[in-house]
Amino acid sequence: MPRTNRVAKSWANSPASGLDLYLELTRAGPAGGGLRTRIEEALREAIRSGRLGLGDRLPASRALARDLGVSRGTVLQAYDQLIAEGWLEGRPGSATLVCFDSAGHPPRHPMREPPPLRWRFDFRPGRPDASSFPRRAWLRAARRAIAAAPNDAFSIGDPQGQLALRVELSGYLSRARGLASAPDRLVVTSGFIQGLGLVARCLPTARGTVAMEEPCLPLHRAVVRATGHEVVPVAVDGDGMRVSQLRGRDDIGLVVLTPNRQHPTGTVLSPHRRAELVQWARGSGALVLEDDYDGEFRYDRHPLGALQTLDPGVVIYAGTVSKTLAPGVRLGWLVVPEGLLAAVLAQKAHADWQSGALDQLAFTELLRSGAYDRHVRRMRLSYRRRRDLLIQALAAARPDLAVTGADAGLDLLIPLPSPGLEAAALAAARAAGIGLDGLAAGSYYERGGPAGLLVGYGATLEATFSRATTALAAALAASSGTE
Amino acid sequence: MPRTNRVAKSWANSPASGLDLYLELTRAGPAGGGLRTRIEEALREAIRSGRLGLGDRLPASRALARDLGVSRGTVLQAYDQLIAEGWLEGRPGSATLVCFDSAGHPPRHPMREPPPLRWRFDFRPGRPDASSFPRRAWLRAARRAIAAAPNDAFSIGDPQGQLALRVELSGYLSRARGLASAPDRLVVTSGFIQGLGLVARCLPTARGTVAMEEPCLPLHRAVVRATGHEVVPVAVDGDGMRVSQLRGRDDIGLVVLTPNRQHPTGTVLSPHRRAELVQWARGSGALVLEDDYDGEFRYDRHPLGALQTLDPGVVIYAGTVSKTLAPGVRLGWLVVPEGLLAAVLAQKAHADWQSGALDQLAFTELLRSGAYDRHVRRMRLSYRRRRDLLIQALAAARPDLAVTGADAGLDLLIPLPSPGLEAAALAAARAAGIGLDGLAAGSYYERGGPAGLLVGYGATLEATFSRATTALAAALAASSGTE
Repeated sequence: MPRTNRVAKSWANSPASGLDLYLELTRAGPAGGGLRTRIEEALREAIRSGRLGLGDRLPASRALARDLGVSRGTVLQAYDQLIAEGWLEGRPGSATLVCFDSAGHPPRHPMREPPPLRWRFDFRPGRPDASSFPRRAWLRAARRAIAAAPNDAFSIGDPQGQLALRVELSGYLSRARGLASAPDRLVVTSGFIQGLGLVARCLPTARGTVAMEEPCLPLHRAVVRATGHEVVPVAVDGDGMRVSQLRGRDDIGLVVLTPNRQHPTGTVLSPHRRAELVQWARGSGALVLEDDYDGEFRYDRHPLGALQTLDPGVVIYAGTVSKTLAPGVRLGWLVVPEGLLAAVLAQKAHADWQSGALDQLAFTELLRSGAYDRHVRRMRLSYRRRRDLLIQALAAARPDLAVTGADAGLDLLIPLPSPGLEAAALAAARAAGIGLDGLAAGSYYERGGPAGLLVGYGATLEATFSRATTALAAALAASSGTE
Repeated sequence: MPRTNRVAKSWANSPASGLDLYLELTRAGPAGGGLRTRIEEALREAIRSGRLGLGDRLPASRALARDLGVSRGTVLQAYDQLIAEGWLEGRPGSATLVCFDSAGHPPRHPMREPPPLRWRFDFRPGRPDASSFPRRAWLRAARRAIAAAPNDAFSIGDPQGQLALRVELSGYLSRARGLASAPDRLVVTSGFIQGLGLVARCLPTARGTVAMEEPCLPLHRAVVRATGHEVVPVAVDGDGMRVSQLRGRDDIGLVVLTPNRQHPTGTVLSPHRRAELVQWARGSGALVLEDDYDGEFRYDRHPLGALQTLDPGVVIYAGTVSKTLAPGVRLGWLVVPEGLLAAVLAQKAHADWQSGALDQLAFTELLRSGAYDRHVRRMRLSYRRRRDLLIQALAAARPDLAVTGADAGLDLLIPLPSPGLEAAALAAARAAGIGLDGLAAGSYYERGGPAGLLVGYGATLEATFSRATTALAAALAASSGTE
């Protein structure tokens, strides 16, 4: 039967069928739905939308076939299908009825548009340069890896992550971060957020309290709370987390912190506090989760070794490609103490069984070929140049403002004396089309804390960085008038 | 300073340093770690391994420099770095001491090898043909999509999934599965397991019981229980889930089922039961999760429309590429009732924020270009051929055995009268290097149930399928002798 446009019309109040019914036959899709499929879909839609209600009689198959110019068999097959699916009811010798009530079915609503939020210049913190995602290098690695992979690589895989990736990662973490990370201790995750949730879900109920830095990313607090655990804030000063606040807290099962660059203040956990934290954890039986979110980007000092190296038996190390490659690439890793491995793997299996095989294959090849190291080095230089430009521009426009946390990472902090001044500066920036964040505005402190501007230099492209810093400096200079 | 092999040796009981110490300097890695880095790593390793203990004196910097043939400045820098990291303690004018105790540090252990389980012929159920993963089509789609994507595509994305993917998916689900699935109701997940967990975590405590089919995949029960909810089994007969068992159960907040092809029995939820289930859910306020894990593969009958189409207000639809592309590609989707959307998105954000951007880009292009539809059609034909061969071989070898659930999916069921016969058949297959599963052996029934063999025809390659079925038929014929 040829598919003619003639039947893709409608029939309304047809004398033959005796029904006031408008059926819009869908176009034949790439799946090659035939006439029968299109009749079925049109009938389903009519019932769904309420135009055909419970108990309504359908046209006799012969009449409908005539209306549509199709064979009666096609119509009968469509009816049978809908009877099988529970939409219609048919008894031999009597009419076919709608046996399904769509009342209460919520109306379709228009597609939600993504927010049209477009900053002229994006200085929001925590964001790397998405334009620098190494598309060509990634595709080259993906092509090589996917072509060479055994069939098993695409099948049901190891919740711990592909062995080849864990071997490459182990080597990378050892050379780049001084880590003790045998491949059998590594767990590949779908990013830090997943890793945080997996670890939190491993805590015993009796040790269910999680200590987190105050300030920290509000999302991370929410992730921990979503696992059912209570969060206690631990203050941060110029030496990082005030570890002494943990003493005597036998309810704490996990301490989550960013020892190598406290987010968002940019301070580093001091050597004394590092030793103190690990000793406390050993004594109390708690675990420590080291969020090394941007350990790769250090500019003015030799990178600190990871906290985990002090005692891989109590410190879980968490790394990610979110800052080095792109946040959209959902790959991270945990280095897990031996005693915790089985529990973490069970949680991973229950979360999503395994992380994506294709990303794992490509990332393995990116590591193996050295392209990942080259990319990280290139980005380190690029971010350093942006940081220098930004600091110069800020110093020229607002010599009264201090800048902290600028020796590493992708953002810096400008402390301000009050939330009012922070709000004024954010408003001035917003008016100039500049995205920023504030310590107060961003809810980094849960129980209230100092104010300040968080200025990220990752997201603004290097090519436009000069113009961007000029605009930012001008906006901040203007906002000083409101003080 | 030239990097010489001379220093990459060791020094032992050196007269100059006065220490019995073996340091193995790591080779310079691709990251280009210099001499100082290598000295640091060697010292860390010595402390980690316990060869340097708490309070041990390090060699004077001058002595160590002489031993190593490096400048004293290099050694001092290495010591300073380890002091900053909390390994060492240095006071002006006195010796540098180890201030970190590695006691209790678990020993390194050898890399765990993946199990060398290799079936000569793989008839395990639930496994598609991983060798058929369309590597070339996927790479072509990835290349096009990654090259054309805006920078934002790689940045922090929408937990709901990329809009372009949801638009393509919505069209696909409508034409292939007759689904009502506007893009704003779709949530892209990292596969069915994640989707199941997300939905279960949305249940209110008062309605926290989850009804699941008995039999079903044990992993799915475990996923639900990991969310803290109780699982109640609902029996399955030739018409699918016995929906009447749900009546009066006001504690049930969610019913999880495989209505279009019950896993693992292969039965289809009857039209009457479909309507009954949806009406019950409406009346009780419970939700229904339709696991449409292989709705694409129907051979002898027109595909059933999805249960979700009966009432998208109470039925959540879950689909996946696990069977159509490969289990390693962690992409799935939920079509979520409007009232549940915000809760599911919050759970997704807390689980892993978003699914991988690169897989989403490539899959969107695969859908848009029609390559996905072509692949599914090709696989449908291929699986159908395998099924026919398998049924013929089984009928010839064991005409006494019935085969059920073979009109769709990737596996069929051979009911057996006792667990003993099942075990005998599995043993005979195993002895022949053939992977299979059993209803009893696989714990599909939690409270005990009938026995039977589950034979998957997805995982064995089409090229070797004839030989494989011959081997399987021979093994089963042999096992009949044990009855």
